[in-house]
Amino acid sequence: MPPTIALSASSSFSLISSSSSSKKSTAFSAFSKPTRTDTFPTSNPRSVRLSNPRPRRSMTIQSAVSIEKETPEAELPDTFLREESSSASSSVRARFEKMIRDAQDSVCRAIEAADGGASFKEDVWSRPGGGGGISRVLQDGAVWEKAGVNVSVVYGVMPPEAYRAAKAASADQKPGPVPFFAAGISSVLHPKNPFAPTLHFNYRYFETDAPQDVVGAPRQWWFGGGTDLTPAYIFEEDVKHFHLVQKSACDKFDPAFYPRFKKWCDDYFYIKHRDERRGLGGIFFDDLNDYDQEMLLSFATEKRKDTPFNDRHKAWQQLRRGRYVEFNLVYDRGTTFGLKTGGRIESILVSLPLTARWEYDHKPEEGSEEWKLLDACINPKEWI
Amino acid sequence: MPPTIALSASSSFSLISSSSSSKKSTAFSAFSKPTRTDTFPTSNPRSVRLSNPRPRRSMTIQSAVSIEKETPEAELPDTFLREESSSASSSVRARFEKMIRDAQDSVCRAIEAADGGASFKEDVWSRPGGGGGISRVLQDGAVWEKAGVNVSVVYGVMPPEAYRAAKAASADQKPGPVPFFAAGISSVLHPKNPFAPTLHFNYRYFETDAPQDVVGAPRQWWFGGGTDLTPAYIFEEDVKHFHLVQKSACDKFDPAFYPRFKKWCDDYFYIKHRDERRGLGGIFFDDLNDYDQEMLLSFATEKRKDTPFNDRHKAWQQLRRGRYVEFNLVYDRGTTFGLKTGGRIESILVSLPLTARWEYDHKPEEGSEEWKLLDACINPKEWI
Repeated sequence: MPPTIALSASSSFSLISSSSSSKKSTAFSAFSKPTRTDTFPTSNPRSVRLSNPRPRRSMTIQSAVSIEKETPEAELPDTFLREESSSASSSVRARFEKMIRDAQDSVCRAIEAADGGASFKEDVWSRPGGGGGISRVLQDGAVWEKAGVNVSVVYGVMPPEAYRAAKAASADQKPGPVPFFAAGISSVLHPKNPFAPTLHFNYRYFETDAPQDVVGAPRQWWFGGGTDLTPAYIFEEDVKHFHLVQKSACDKFDPAFYPRFKKWCDDYFYIKHRDERRGLGGIFFDDLNDYDQEMLLSFATEKRKDTPFNDRHKAWQQLRRGRYVEFNLVYDRGTTFGLKTGGRIESILVSLPLTARWEYDHKPEEGSEEWKLLDACINPKEWI
Repeated sequence: MPPTIALSASSSFSLISSSSSSKKSTAFSAFSKPTRTDTFPTSNPRSVRLSNPRPRRSMTIQSAVSIEKETPEAELPDTFLREESSSASSSVRARFEKMIRDAQDSVCRAIEAADGGASFKEDVWSRPGGGGGISRVLQDGAVWEKAGVNVSVVYGVMPPEAYRAAKAASADQKPGPVPFFAAGISSVLHPKNPFAPTLHFNYRYFETDAPQDVVGAPRQWWFGGGTDLTPAYIFEEDVKHFHLVQKSACDKFDPAFYPRFKKWCDDYFYIKHRDERRGLGGIFFDDLNDYDQEMLLSFATEKRKDTPFNDRHKAWQQLRRGRYVEFNLVYDRGTTFGLKTGGRIESILVSLPLTARWEYDHKPEEGSEEWKLLDACINPKEWI
């Protein structure tokens, strides 16, 4: 079994993986533009063969994983990393942490400036054994009903069965629990105006230790992430622009990325029980880094934040938010992984909208604007 | 492994189970008050040893189960049962179907009368291979924002691994998919007034065939259900009365039932990731039948439907409804089973409230009415 598929099953964060014994990481180089490739784990050629896992795979991680309860911190620490010998791995970890914390700062500054009213509430937390995070939430603003930008750096333990799935080891092998490291940034912006879209992005870096009791089993690492657009109404020029920005960012690295990641996104944000996507997609996994915050803020929300709307528009937005809740609670890997491994609950569920609505058997009138959006969620389109 | 625990794991409907080779069913006799016990599958003494499964067990049923898409029906059929030879089993099925359809009628009549405004929208559906259901939803009424009362009678196939878990068979045995039959009634009432509680009940009857390729594996059957109260504010006299009614109904059958089912309910409606219950409990599983509709309607909602409330009360109700959504989408066995086996989605998710709300890190002021409710959800009380 190729490592990509294997790790998808075991980690809930799926995405690009590689063994530490290999040579070059397309994914990582796109992320952090390293000038030296000799200081961090590099991938083997298989990492290029991205698989496209369906979102239907069920979780293999059980509640056997337990993580210490978080404690609030009064101040921002320089780092959430444990003090460890300066290895190739810790260097990657440190650089990734810096990148996501810088991104959090700049995204939050830009959101506050655009909102013009509310400011972020910040919660810093840590765990006794190392790791922690910074949650920032802006609620009831002038432009956004709820905007969250979180970073976290966590150490945990994967249950043996998850690692076994990852390694495709036989059932006879009984490795012990496998330590993992995960760091990431995620953001969800829920605007007030139903014509302004919900925007979401997240990026993660994930490592597992090699289990000491399984001979030859490698250490694994991978990056994941994506950005997607969830409007309640379609402005085709906006959707096109959104996809174009992503395509051009992808194209800088590999022209094969956009079509592959676009499809991956359509597949990932699939609400199986509805046979619809939660929105109009984007890219997932992408291995790009910091173009998002500019695009996010200058473009979609800003542009539609003052468009007049009525109760019907707002009710439709609320219904689509119901779908957002369904996807996040039932399928989203980050959310379900977080819930099952004892993550900080308020940080995980900040992705949920301030308000949502479920009407029984609501069917938009054929040909209406509401219907067009639903149709595009059922039948993903090529926007560019 | 006793059959109770085993079937809990495999079925998602857990609850009382027994093999077809045994003698007497406490559960069933309470349900349908049969005058003859020789015409339906009876239980062995182990069925009395009710287990109390924690809600943490992960689903073993995979999306491998596929059920034909439902089709709308213009008229109410006499029965959703397949024509089959008049066996003991089909007699139980027919009597159970009649009971739940009668209950649906009387509950809906009573709700409409109490609401005084809106009436139920009815959807009848069936599946080509047999089975079907009746969904009735009242939305935007004078008293209820959303009230749903559904019955369903379904035939399906359990994946082999689910049956293996049920039978505790060794991994070497490879039974084929196991046909099952399930019939049930469920109801959720979400009132407008934040001082009136959300009420929920459901009752089910479940059968699995014996797998033909595993020698000696029995056919299994069981009943399940419960009734629980989910207020946003505590009126102690109401909660006490609710529990008293249930206790007295339980006591008619066995004084051991109420304490066992009360605890079972507290354990079942547990939102693990919040370390709270969704409400103030009730009984689960109970093996009682038709006292609920009277109590439901004459008592809790009616009594509080005209209590004055303000925006703060309404916002708190919305937040608690967010918890209701979290429980139903993440943990509820009926919901997750339905989503994963291709049940009729609008019937399954009718349990979700019309509106819900998620505020970041909301903490009610200590000692406030909101705090008292939360405290009772975190630390289940003995109300009587």
